[in-house]
Amino acid sequence: MAKVLSGAGLRGQVAGKTALSTVGKSGSGLTYRGYDVKELAEHCDFEEVAYLILKGHLPTQAELDSYKGELRSMRGLPQALKEVLERIPADAHPMDVLRTGCSMLGNLEGETSFDLQGKVTDRMLACFPSIICYWYRFSHDGVRINVETDDDSIGAHFLHMLHGKKPNDLHERVMHVSLILYAEHEFNASTFTARVCASTLSDMHSCVTGAIGSLRGPLHGGANEAAMDMIQGFTSAEHAEQEMMGMLERKEKIMGFGHAIYSECDPRNEIIKLWSEKLAKDVGDTVLYPVSVRCEEVMWREKKLFCNADFFHASAYNFMGIPTKLFTPIFVMSRLTGWAAHVMEQRADNRIIRPSAEYTGEELRPVPPISGR
Amino acid sequence: MAKVLSGAGLRGQVAGKTALSTVGKSGSGLTYRGYDVKELAEHCDFEEVAYLILKGHLPTQAELDSYKGELRSMRGLPQALKEVLERIPADAHPMDVLRTGCSMLGNLEGETSFDLQGKVTDRMLACFPSIICYWYRFSHDGVRINVETDDDSIGAHFLHMLHGKKPNDLHERVMHVSLILYAEHEFNASTFTARVCASTLSDMHSCVTGAIGSLRGPLHGGANEAAMDMIQGFTSAEHAEQEMMGMLERKEKIMGFGHAIYSECDPRNEIIKLWSEKLAKDVGDTVLYPVSVRCEEVMWREKKLFCNADFFHASAYNFMGIPTKLFTPIFVMSRLTGWAAHVMEQRADNRIIRPSAEYTGEELRPVPPISGR
Ligand SMILES: CC(C)(COP(=O)(O)OP(=O)(O)OC[C@H]1O[C@@H](n2cnc3c(N)ncnc32)[C@H](O)[C@@H]1OP(=O)(O)O)[C@@H](O)C(=O)NCCC(=O)NCCS
Ligand SMILES: CC(C)(COP(=O)(O)OP(=O)(O)OC[C@H]1O[C@@H](n2cnc3c(N)ncnc32)[C@H](O)[C@@H]1OP(=O)(O)O)[C@@H](O)C(=O)NCCC(=O)NCCS
Repeated sequence: MAKVLSGAGLRGQVAGKTALSTVGKSGSGLTYRGYDVKELAEHCDFEEVAYLILKGHLPTQAELDSYKGELRSMRGLPQALKEVLERIPADAHPMDVLRTGCSMLGNLEGETSFDLQGKVTDRMLACFPSIICYWYRFSHDGVRINVETDDDSIGAHFLHMLHGKKPNDLHERVMHVSLILYAEHEFNASTFTARVCASTLSDMHSCVTGAIGSLRGPLHGGANEAAMDMIQGFTSAEHAEQEMMGMLERKEKIMGFGHAIYSECDPRNEIIKLWSEKLAKDVGDTVLYPVSVRCEEVMWREKKLFCNADFFHASAYNFMGIPTKLFTPIFVMSRLTGWAAHVMEQRADNRIIRPSAEYTGEELRPVPPISGR
Repeated sequence: MAKVLSGAGLRGQVAGKTALSTVGKSGSGLTYRGYDVKELAEHCDFEEVAYLILKGHLPTQAELDSYKGELRSMRGLPQALKEVLERIPADAHPMDVLRTGCSMLGNLEGETSFDLQGKVTDRMLACFPSIICYWYRFSHDGVRINVETDDDSIGAHFLHMLHGKKPNDLHERVMHVSLILYAEHEFNASTFTARVCASTLSDMHSCVTGAIGSLRGPLHGGANEAAMDMIQGFTSAEHAEQEMMGMLERKEKIMGFGHAIYSECDPRNEIIKLWSEKLAKDVGDTVLYPVSVRCEEVMWREKKLFCNADFFHASAYNFMGIPTKLFTPIFVMSRLTGWAAHVMEQRADNRIIRPSAEYTGEELRPVPPISGR
């Protein structure tokens, strides 16, 4: 008979195997294929880390150059996809746009065989920034942008299209760091969505489309946007403290804090916090960064809750001029690597993921005729 | 610490609670809210069962009439959605079309508050047949059909648009039965996908879009199409037996057989089999039905494997002139009810679904400089 698990949400229950990352394993906060994320964020470009996660090893210089070149060559969007994006209104949720764009891509360039899994993944890595920015600039500014730029990296490609000019070195570096930090995180809800989908032997676009839908939720990727909306309303550190205390008293959930697995800290936080501080200095900010720091202090003091990866991402993205509504789509540009690698892993040793449920409903009863209801 | 579950695919492990259905509970094969699916399929229209699953009780005649009227009034498609469908090529996978159509609908008529969950679900129930047929007839026949027909039921609406004329009573009844049989099935992979997505507090369109992607897989909803492709290649019962024996010898998986939960039979099979037989007589078939029966006999004799819901659906749909590639989308038109009801149930008592993984990868190691790789 079915065994009842302790706790809801499958928390702490092993649902499968992975060689891709460790989250919260003692002694090492977060590793991708054995490498500490802190070291990767310090020394690598995002494309190196994507290569590592997807292909299994860190690339040599030649491999990296060729991989970047391939990705660069795949930035264009099919005409039919552009026409679909042009039909999505400006007030749509950008995650819904990306979900639709990814799904549409599957109609035009489907994964007709699992042999193509690496290729369709690289294609998505290369063109998701194009999808986001093409729609954003068309619906908000009325322009049809050229998405085939020659920028070196995915992050620079994104900022270039968004702002209409090449980013400076600091911004390009922050994008590398941010995309590295978000790239992979074991069996989080969106990745688990992708694996459940993959377990039916469905195609890569279905898996990624489903994962985007899960990441959209405010308890998951949507948290960075919610955090931004909150801190933007605070005019000073003191004001932030006052408001936070009120929220805590009213037992409101505060986005960007807490984590399902980490219990003491999120190792990604100290890294992005440092870059947020650098960006604050660079733009001469005197409000948003101090406000963020105070939020962190209050939450720790009052509730022993720590910032997760999302919290200082909010201010960092804001300092780079990125509109709040595009925060979660950037998460997608990065986590796509983890999702796709998990899909490949699931396919390599698959059994359909089909748990059981505890039944809490009505006992067996006869169907009454409609006249007697 | 995390506990390792016995078996892969979470088989037999309880991942949550539901009051919606029982699958394979001893004494009752399949019940929806306590009612045996056999009784429902015999006495009810699909709209009654959808009402039961979504709203909690079987409708009175007045409630049913008003519900059908509401659904009828929501069949139209927004112009932007039609224009998107017109951009999807004829050789696309119809499940990819539906996934994209559902996702696009979320951009145009998003679930801006969970208070709208019932309304957006009814809207999808009403217009998914329109999405499928609008795309199918446009891409295959070059016509822009009117999707706002006055047919009484969802099944009749679908057949009417597909064939350009109202279906006869037998066909309309078979559609009711088929949609009832597919409506709900506890924590199957696509429903579980929808629940994982819902657990991040994402919107209904994301949950359903993800579920469509999961149902597409050949191990799940895709099985009815695969079964059709197989039986269509058999010219007689003897030929079928011969081929099946060869496939079994080569240890090939035979679609439409076996089940993750049922161990002795799928209670839906005897029902759809009966209707397939009726349809065979009606069209004067002397091949497909006998071939199907022989396949069933061989699989039971050789492997003790029984037909699941998908197997006799293949011939039944074929007898009604439905193209094979539209089989799984019909499954969506029906299972949507179960998915949405599970999303509502998850939201009513939510914790983010975030399991753990057993790590099988590399131990912690330093990042080598790129020049030294
Ligand atoms: C991440 C998250 C979903 C983890 O959920 P979980 O594993 O189910 O953790 P729980 O909800 O059981 O949290 C344990 C306790 O801390 C509280 N808590 C957790 N995160 C909180 C937050 N951000 N604000 C206020 N209280 C919080 C919970 O209410 C709960 O309190 P209780 O025991 O009194 O009910 C949860 O911390 C959260 O919702 N955070 C905000 C959203 C967010 O930032 N998501 C991004 C994650 S990377
Ligand atoms: C439904 C299904 C995915 C269930 O998967 P599951 O719970 O993991 O069951 P298993 O794959 O462990 O099946 C047990 C054994 O029966 C065999 N088996 C199951 N279904 C089979 C089939 N359709 N054809 C041939 N052998 C089959 C398996 O190979 C396995 O044999 P083994 O122990 O020698 O490896 C599986 O039966 C299947 O793939 N069926 C065909 C697809 C289908 O019809 N899906 C629609 C389901 S409604």
